[in-house]
Amino acid sequence: MHRNDEMKLGLFLWGAGYHEGAWRDPGAPANCGVDVGHYAALAALAESAAFHLIFLADTPSVSELDDAHIARSSRNDGFEPITLLSALSSRTECVGLVGTATTTYNQPYHLARMFASLDHLSRGRAGWNIVTSGFKLEAANFGERELPDHCARYARAREFVEVVKGLWDSWEDDAFIRDKRSGIFADIKKLHLLNHRGNNLSVRGPLNIARPPQGYPVLVQAGASDTGIEFAAEFGEVVFTAAPYLEYGQKYYSTLKERARAHGREDDQVLVMPGLIPIVGRTKQEASDKLERLHSYEHIDAQIGAANRGLGSVAELRSLDLDAAVPETLPQTNFIQSRQKLYLDMAARQKFTWRQLIRFISDTKGHLMVVGTPDEIADAMVEAFDERAADGFNVIPATLPGGFKDFVDLVVPELRRRGKFRTGYSRQTLRESLGLKLPPNRFAQAGVSNRP
Amino acid sequence: MHRNDEMKLGLFLWGAGYHEGAWRDPGAPANCGVDVGHYAALAALAESAAFHLIFLADTPSVSELDDAHIARSSRNDGFEPITLLSALSSRTECVGLVGTATTTYNQPYHLARMFASLDHLSRGRAGWNIVTSGFKLEAANFGERELPDHCARYARAREFVEVVKGLWDSWEDDAFIRDKRSGIFADIKKLHLLNHRGNNLSVRGPLNIARPPQGYPVLVQAGASDTGIEFAAEFGEVVFTAAPYLEYGQKYYSTLKERARAHGREDDQVLVMPGLIPIVGRTKQEASDKLERLHSYEHIDAQIGAANRGLGSVAELRSLDLDAAVPETLPQTNFIQSRQKLYLDMAARQKFTWRQLIRFISDTKGHLMVVGTPDEIADAMVEAFDERAADGFNVIPATLPGGFKDFVDLVVPELRRRGKFRTGYSRQTLRESLGLKLPPNRFAQAGVSNRP
Repeated sequence: MHRNDEMKLGLFLWGAGYHEGAWRDPGAPANCGVDVGHYAALAALAESAAFHLIFLADTPSVSELDDAHIARSSRNDGFEPITLLSALSSRTECVGLVGTATTTYNQPYHLARMFASLDHLSRGRAGWNIVTSGFKLEAANFGERELPDHCARYARAREFVEVVKGLWDSWEDDAFIRDKRSGIFADIKKLHLLNHRGNNLSVRGPLNIARPPQGYPVLVQAGASDTGIEFAAEFGEVVFTAAPYLEYGQKYYSTLKERARAHGREDDQVLVMPGLIPIVGRTKQEASDKLERLHSYEHIDAQIGAANRGLGSVAELRSLDLDAAVPETLPQTNFIQSRQKLYLDMAARQKFTWRQLIRFISDTKGHLMVVGTPDEIADAMVEAFDERAADGFNVIPATLPGGFKDFVDLVVPELRRRGKFRTGYSRQTLRESLGLKLPPNRFAQAGVSNRP
Repeated sequence: MHRNDEMKLGLFLWGAGYHEGAWRDPGAPANCGVDVGHYAALAALAESAAFHLIFLADTPSVSELDDAHIARSSRNDGFEPITLLSALSSRTECVGLVGTATTTYNQPYHLARMFASLDHLSRGRAGWNIVTSGFKLEAANFGERELPDHCARYARAREFVEVVKGLWDSWEDDAFIRDKRSGIFADIKKLHLLNHRGNNLSVRGPLNIARPPQGYPVLVQAGASDTGIEFAAEFGEVVFTAAPYLEYGQKYYSTLKERARAHGREDDQVLVMPGLIPIVGRTKQEASDKLERLHSYEHIDAQIGAANRGLGSVAELRSLDLDAAVPETLPQTNFIQSRQKLYLDMAARQKFTWRQLIRFISDTKGHLMVVGTPDEIADAMVEAFDERAADGFNVIPATLPGGFKDFVDLVVPELRRRGKFRTGYSRQTLRESLGLKLPPNRFAQAGVSNRP
C-alpha cells in the first residue's frame, strides 16, 4: 500500500473553540459564533500554515432544551455553515472549505446546488460532510415528532447522496461552450436529466449550474456505526472519526480501508482523519495549566448537559452518584449509538467513575486529546500516522484563536522538521490537494443519454 | 403623505444582463453565471454609486426544457443566490444584499437560518425576496408532479413568512449576555419557542443563531395578482414590480399603498420599486443602436422560448402566424397569471402582433425599458417618482457590466443634479438605508414567554 508520507490536516472551527468553557477564555471574541472576522482570521491562519481544509460541524437545532445547559452554552448562537463558508471563499485562496449538512431534513436539489455554487465560488475548494440527523430537536424543526430510525435515516442518506451526485452530473464538464459567434451557449447533447424515482426521493433535474470544478465537491463522512462505516467505505473520501487511543484508531482504519477495497476503492482515495485536540504548552506543566484553566470555566451543569447529550440522553445524570463506577452497558438509543459505545469502551478501559466519564466527554467528545509539549503532540500524531491509525487529522483546538495559534506556532514546525507536513500549496483544488481523483461524469462515462 | 425626495435604487444582477442575448456581447464575461469576480465588480460599482441594494432573482430549476431555448440560453448556469450573496458580503461594506428564495419548496427553518446568517455576515444588509414557485419544472425537482394551485401556494407562503419571522424572534436582541465572569452566556428568559403548528408547517424552534442585526432581514415581495398584492401589502417592505407605462405603475402604487394602510402600515414602510431597463446612449441614435445590436444577438428560438415561458406556456407560439394580432384573452394558467395579464394589456394597448409581443416580452419581461439619452432616462424615472408610480427603481441593465457602467457614469450624475439621488451612505444597515423601521420582537413586545 502506497501512502504519501505527509499528513493531511484540517482545522475544526467552532466558535470560541471545542471546549464548552472556551468562550470564557480572555482571548475568546465576545460574540464568537457570529463574528465573521474571527472565522476569517482563523481561515487565513490555516491557509498560512498550508492546512488542507477547514471544517464546520452542524446541527439544525439548538443543542438541547435543558435551561441550565443553554444558559451556559455558547453553541446556540452561530453562523449557518454554507453561508459562512461562502463568505470565507472570498477571503481565502487555497484552503478547502468543508461544511456539514444533513441528508435527513434537506432537499437534495437545494443542497447539490449550494455545494456546486460554493465549489464555483471557491474555484474548487468545497467539501460536504454528509450526516444524518441524530438529535430529536432537529425533527421538531422540520415537522416531525421523532427522528426516523437509524436504518431509515441511512437508507435515505444513501439515496440522497446518489441523487446529489447525479445532479452534479447534469451537465458534462464541457457542456457550456458559450460560443458568442454562433449564439450556441450549451451543447444540449451534454445535458442529462436525472429522472430519479426512489423510495425516499423523486428528483428530475437537471441542476441549473455547471458541473462543479471538482466534478463533485469532496465527500466527507463520519460514519462510526456498522452502517455508518459501510456508508463511509462506499462514499467517503475524507472520513472524520473519533479515535481516543491508538488501537481504537488502528482498528477503525483497517476496517474502513478493507471495506472500501470491497467497493473497489483504492486506499489513498479514502482518507481517515480522526479528530485531535491539542493542548499545547512549552512545558508539560504549562499545557496542564491551560487545561485546568479551561476546567475552571466550565460549570458542572454544562458538563452534564454535554455528557447527557453525548450519551443519547439515556442516563439521568443529575440524579446519579457521580463517584460511582460507570456500568458496562446503558439503554441503546436511536442515535449516536456508536459514540455511546465509544464512551462505554473508554469508561471500561479506564475504569471511569461517572464524574470522570462526564469530564472525558465534555473535554473530548471522544476525540484524542493530547496535553503536552509540541514534541509530545507531534509524537502522538506521528505515531498514529505511521502506525496506520490516521492519514491525517482534523485538528480541534480547545480554544480559538489561542489554541490554534499555539498549534501553528509550535506543533506545525515540529511536524515539518520530521518531514510529516508540507510547507505550502502546490495544487489548486481541495481534491487535488488531498490527492483525490476527479470523479468521472456518470453519463459521459457511460455514453448514456437519458433525455426524453 | 410624507416622502423622502430621493429615490431608492437597486441593481438587478443576472449573469451577462437581463437581455436574453446579452451573453454574446463582446463585453460579457465568458462564463457570466459562475464568475464571482464579475458579480463582485458589479456589487462594488453599485456600492461606489451609493445604490441601496443588489437583487438576485431565482428559480430552483432550469428555465425550461425546450432544447432550442436551452441551447441558446445562458440562464442555466448560475450561482445559487444565498451562497453568492454570502460571498459578496465579504467584498462589500454598505450595499444591501437581496436574494430570492421560494416558500413553496423550502423549509422555513433552513431559510430563516440562512438569511439570519447572511444578515450577521453582512452586518445587517440582508434582504429576502419572498416568492412562490411559478414553474412546473420546479415541482419535479422536489418530488411533486404539479405545482400546488395559486391559492394553496399563497396560503403556504403566508404561513411560511410568519414562521420565519417567529424563528427570527427566537432570541430577544439582548438575549446573549456572554458574561465571562459569571459563566452565563444566554439569558434564558429571553429565549422563546415558536411551537408553530399550522395547516402547512409545523416548526418548534428556536433558531440557533442570534436575532438578525436588522431584527428581520428586509422583506421584499413582488406580488402582482390580487392575492399577491394583498400579500405584498401585508408583508412587503420593498415591492419589486413591473410597470411598463406610467398609468400602470400609478395604479399599482396607489392600490398597494391603500391596501397596506388597511393593514395599519405607513406609506413609507412599503417601498414600491418597479424594474427599469435603461438602454443608455449619449445620443438617442447610439441608444437605439445598442438595442439593435442586442436584437441581433438573439435567435428567434430564444425569443419564443422566453415569451412562451412568460405567457405560462399556454400558446403554441411556434405554430402561430407571428404577424397576426394577439387575441384579447388566452387560456388562464396556474402560474404567472398577473404577468400574462400585463402582456395582454400591453398587446391590446399597443395593438401588438405576436412578433411584436414576443419582442416586447423578450426585451422587457414586462418592465419599463427606456432607450435614450441620460436626460431622457432621468426624465422617465423622475416622472414615475414624482407622479407616484415609484419610490425608486430596481435598475435592470440589459447587459452587464456594460449597461450598468453606462447607467452609473451617465444617468446617476443626472439624477443627482436633479436632487433625486444621494451621493453616499450615511446609515449602516439596509433597513436604515431604506428608512424602514426595526421590527420589534413579537415575544419581547408582548412580554410573552411561551417556553414550556
